[in-house]
Amino acid sequence: MSSLRAAARLRLAARLPAVRTSRPYSAAAAAKPSKPLSHAPFFSNEPAGPTIKTAIPGPMSQAAIEELDMSFDTRSLNMLANYEQSFGNYIKDLDGNVLLDVYAQIASIPVGYSNPALRAAASSEQMISALINRPALGNFPQHDWSDILCTGILTVAPKGLDQVFTAMAGSDANETAYKAAFMYRRQQERGGAHVEFSDAEIASSMINQAPGAPQLSILSFKTAFHGRLFGSLSTTRSKPIHKLDIPAFDWPQATFPLLKYPLHEFEAENAAAEAEALADVERLITTHHLPPCAVVVEPIQSEGGDNHASPAFFRGLRALTKKHNVLLIVDEVQTGVGATGKFWAHDHWNLETPPDMVTFSKKAQTAGYYFGNPDLRPNKPYRQFNTWMGDPARALLFRAIIKEIERLDLVTNTANVGEYLYAGLERLATQYPGEFQNLRGKGQGTFIAFDSPRRDEFLSKAKSVGVNIGGSGERAVRLRPMLIFQKHHADLLLEAVEKIVKS
Amino acid sequence: MSSLRAAARLRLAARLPAVRTSRPYSAAAAAKPSKPLSHAPFFSNEPAGPTIKTAIPGPMSQAAIEELDMSFDTRSLNMLANYEQSFGNYIKDLDGNVLLDVYAQIASIPVGYSNPALRAAASSEQMISALINRPALGNFPQHDWSDILCTGILTVAPKGLDQVFTAMAGSDANETAYKAAFMYRRQQERGGAHVEFSDAEIASSMINQAPGAPQLSILSFKTAFHGRLFGSLSTTRSKPIHKLDIPAFDWPQATFPLLKYPLHEFEAENAAAEAEALADVERLITTHHLPPCAVVVEPIQSEGGDNHASPAFFRGLRALTKKHNVLLIVDEVQTGVGATGKFWAHDHWNLETPPDMVTFSKKAQTAGYYFGNPDLRPNKPYRQFNTWMGDPARALLFRAIIKEIERLDLVTNTANVGEYLYAGLERLATQYPGEFQNLRGKGQGTFIAFDSPRRDEFLSKAKSVGVNIGGSGERAVRLRPMLIFQKHHADLLLEAVEKIVKS
Repeated sequence: MSSLRAAARLRLAARLPAVRTSRPYSAAAAAKPSKPLSHAPFFSNEPAGPTIKTAIPGPMSQAAIEELDMSFDTRSLNMLANYEQSFGNYIKDLDGNVLLDVYAQIASIPVGYSNPALRAAASSEQMISALINRPALGNFPQHDWSDILCTGILTVAPKGLDQVFTAMAGSDANETAYKAAFMYRRQQERGGAHVEFSDAEIASSMINQAPGAPQLSILSFKTAFHGRLFGSLSTTRSKPIHKLDIPAFDWPQATFPLLKYPLHEFEAENAAAEAEALADVERLITTHHLPPCAVVVEPIQSEGGDNHASPAFFRGLRALTKKHNVLLIVDEVQTGVGATGKFWAHDHWNLETPPDMVTFSKKAQTAGYYFGNPDLRPNKPYRQFNTWMGDPARALLFRAIIKEIERLDLVTNTANVGEYLYAGLERLATQYPGEFQNLRGKGQGTFIAFDSPRRDEFLSKAKSVGVNIGGSGERAVRLRPMLIFQKHHADLLLEAVEKIVKS
Repeated sequence: MSSLRAAARLRLAARLPAVRTSRPYSAAAAAKPSKPLSHAPFFSNEPAGPTIKTAIPGPMSQAAIEELDMSFDTRSLNMLANYEQSFGNYIKDLDGNVLLDVYAQIASIPVGYSNPALRAAASSEQMISALINRPALGNFPQHDWSDILCTGILTVAPKGLDQVFTAMAGSDANETAYKAAFMYRRQQERGGAHVEFSDAEIASSMINQAPGAPQLSILSFKTAFHGRLFGSLSTTRSKPIHKLDIPAFDWPQATFPLLKYPLHEFEAENAAAEAEALADVERLITTHHLPPCAVVVEPIQSEGGDNHASPAFFRGLRALTKKHNVLLIVDEVQTGVGATGKFWAHDHWNLETPPDMVTFSKKAQTAGYYFGNPDLRPNKPYRQFNTWMGDPARALLFRAIIKEIERLDLVTNTANVGEYLYAGLERLATQYPGEFQNLRGKGQGTFIAFDSPRRDEFLSKAKSVGVNIGGSGERAVRLRPMLIFQKHHADLLLEAVEKIVKS
C-alpha cells in the first residue's frame, strides 16, 4: 500500500465510523422499539386528513390524461398528481382530491412529498452543479464524489460491505450485480485475477458464444421480481404480462416457500415448505445445465405478491450458497431503506456472513449495489462501466434522505407504527372474517399485506374513502407507507379499510 | 375519438408546431450554414484558454483519487474535476489545471459547464419539486408531464415520430426499444393487437422458453456499441473487454462497411463495401436461425472507432428493412442533439420514410426512444413499464438545453465550426503525413475523428498541452466538443494538436 493510499484509508476510516464499527439502523436503533408512538405530526404543513371532491379521475384529470396520452402511453395511469401541492403522506390530484398515500410511488417516496429538508438539499449550490454538470463518473468523477459517497450512500452500507457501484434504477442495479457475479465466477475458474483471457475467450465473446460469453446463469425464485431489462427480466417470475414476447435466457427458477398463515398454526408445514425450497435451490445449483454463479433473492417478494420466508430460510440459503461457492445477491430495491423496521430487511436474518452483494433503488432515489469482497471489482478497468454510472444529483438526495431518517428516527418510527398498524389489521381480520386473508408482515415495520377476496375492487374503492393503496401479485393488498407514516395516519388507514370492507 | 380526446388533440396541435409542421433543426436551420463564424465568446465567464500548473494528475488529485478508490473503482479514472469551477468548454481539476474539453463527459455535455441558463432551470421551483417528489411516471405522472414533454423532448422529435418512451440512460433506452420491437413482431405474427396470448405462450413465458419467450433477435453491426446491459450488450460488438464473461443472446451481427479515406479516392471500393454490407444484412434477415425483428444502427459508430457510412447506405438499409418487415432502430445516443451539424445525425440521410424508433441519451441528459407508429405501444398496459420510467428532473433539464440550443443557434454553430475545424485538420494532415490517418467526419459538424499511429500517447500528451481529448476503437482520436465550441476554440485545438504531433 502506498503512503498516499494509507493516508487516504486513515482519512476514510475517520469519516466512516458507521460503516466500519457500528450500524446505527441495521442492528441497533430498530432492534428494540422503545419510544412511545408520537402523536405530533412530523410536518406542520401536512393536511389533517383526506379530502374527496370528485370521483377519481375527476374532470380536470380526465382532460389532462387525454392530452398526455397523445404522446405517452397512459394505460397504466393510476392518478395524475400535482406534487407541488402534495405534502407529507398526502398526494393531491388535479381536481383537488387529497389522498392519504400508502403506495408512495410504488414504495419509493421515503420522507414525504415536498419534504422541507430535501427541498433545502435540492436548492443547494452543490445540487445545482450536480444537475447541470453531470459527469461520466467512471472517467471524470467530481472532486467531492468520495465525500458524497462517504457521508451518504456508504454510511448506511450493510454490515460487511464497504464498496459501491452506482447505477440508475433497480433493473440496472441488479444487472450490474449479475455482471459482477459472472466476471467473478469466470475469474475463479481461470485461476485468479492475474490470469489473462484466452484467445478463444476473446474471439468467442465477440460472437456471443462460449467460452467468452459463458454458459452460466443467475438462479432466481418463482414469483420473484428483479426488473424488466433483458437480464433482470430473465430472473423475474412474477407475472406473464411482464415477460411475454421478450426473449429470455434459459436460467433456472427455484421454488419459493409459500407460507401459510397464521404462521403459528402452520409451523411444521411452513418449515417443510422452506426445507423443500432449499432442496430445490441445491438441486438446481448442482444439476442445472447452465450452472448458477449467483442466487438473487428479495427479502420479501414484493411485486410477486408479498411473499415472506423466515430468517431461518435465508440463513439456510446463505449456508447453501457458501457451500457451493455461489454468490448471494440480496435485492433490497423494494425492501431497503427502513420500510421493514430495520434499515435493510436482511438485517432481520442475523446472518453469520454478509450477503455478497445488496442492490438498492426506490427509496434511495438512486440505485446501485453494495459489495465487500474486493475481488468483485473485475480484474481490469472498463469491464463494469458506462457513461454516467449513476447520478451525483440523486446521490446527494439520498444523503439528505439518510439525514432526515436520522433526524426523525424514522426506522424506529416505522417499526413502532408498523406494530400498531398490524395489531389494528389483526383486529379487523377477526371482526370481518374472510376479508383479510393471510395477513402478513408482523414485525416487518409497515411492510404489511393481506389477500382480499375482491382485491381490485378494494383498491378502487380505497380512493373513494381517501386512501391511495397498491396491490401486488394476484390478490394481495400491499401497504407501502412512507417512513413518516405515524400513528394518526395508521388510525385513518384502519378506519378507511374498515369502511371499504363494510361497503 | 371522444370529444375530450379531440379537444386534447387540438390543444396539443396548437402547442407542437415544430413536431407537426416544420423541423427547426433537423431539416431547415442547419442545412445551409449561412452565418459567419462568431468570434465573440458565448459566455463571458469562460476562461480565455487552458492553464497547466502541474502534471496531470497533480498531487491534490492523486490524494483524492486514492481516497475515492477505497470504495469506488477508479481504474478507469481519467481526471478528477471540480465542476463548480468549470465553465463553458473548460474543465478544471483539483490542482488548478484548466483544460479545453473536447471529450465533454464522453460526448454528453451539450451547452457547457455551469451554463447560466441551465443553472436558472436547475434552481426553479418546478425542478426542485421534480427532484424531491419523483413520481412513478407510468402510474402517477405529474400534472405537467404532458407540458414538459410537449415543450421539451417532443419539440425536437425526429420527423414522423410523435411518441416517446422515457428512460434513464442509453442502455435502457435501447433495451426498451428492443422490447417494443419484439412485442410488435409477435403481435403481427399473432394477427393483431386484438388477438389474445395463447395458454402456451403464457405458460412458456414464465419458464423463459418459446413461444412465450420467442426465438427472435436484434440484428446489429460489427464494431457497433449499443450499451452494456444484457440485451444491449448482446448487440454491442466494439471490444472484447466490454463483453468477456457476460452471457449473451445468440443474436446476429452484420458486416459494417469499413470505408477507405479520402473518400473521393475510393468511391468505387467504398460503394462495393456498402453493397456487400447490405447483402450481409439481407442474408442474416432471411436466414438467421433467430429471425431479427429489428436492425439497430448508429449513424456513426462511435465507441467502435468512429466508423461512417454514406447516406446511400442508410437509405439502402431503410429499404431493406421495409422490404423484409423488420424495424429500423437508429441509436442516436452519441450522435444526437446537434453534434453532427443537424439536430439528429440521421437527418443527413434524406430518408423517404422515417426510422421506426430513434433512441437518445447523453447530450439530452435524459434518455428514451421516439417512435411514430401507435402499434409500437404494446397491446396491453404494464408490458413496457417500470417504476420511474425516466426522470422529470432530467426532462426539465433537456428542455432548458433545447432552449439554449435555439437561443444561440448552436446546431448552425456546430455545422460551421465543424467545417472550419475539419479544414484545419486537413491542412495539418498534409503538413504531417502519417500523423492524421483516415481523417473523417467532413460535413458532420464537429463529429470528427482520425487515426493516430500512437493514439494513446497522443491522448496522454494532449493534457500536457491543455486539451482533454478522448479516443474510440483501437486507434482513433475522436473529437466530441460541446455545441458551444467556437472558432477560437478550434484555433486553440488545432494549435495544441500540432504541438502534440511535433513533439
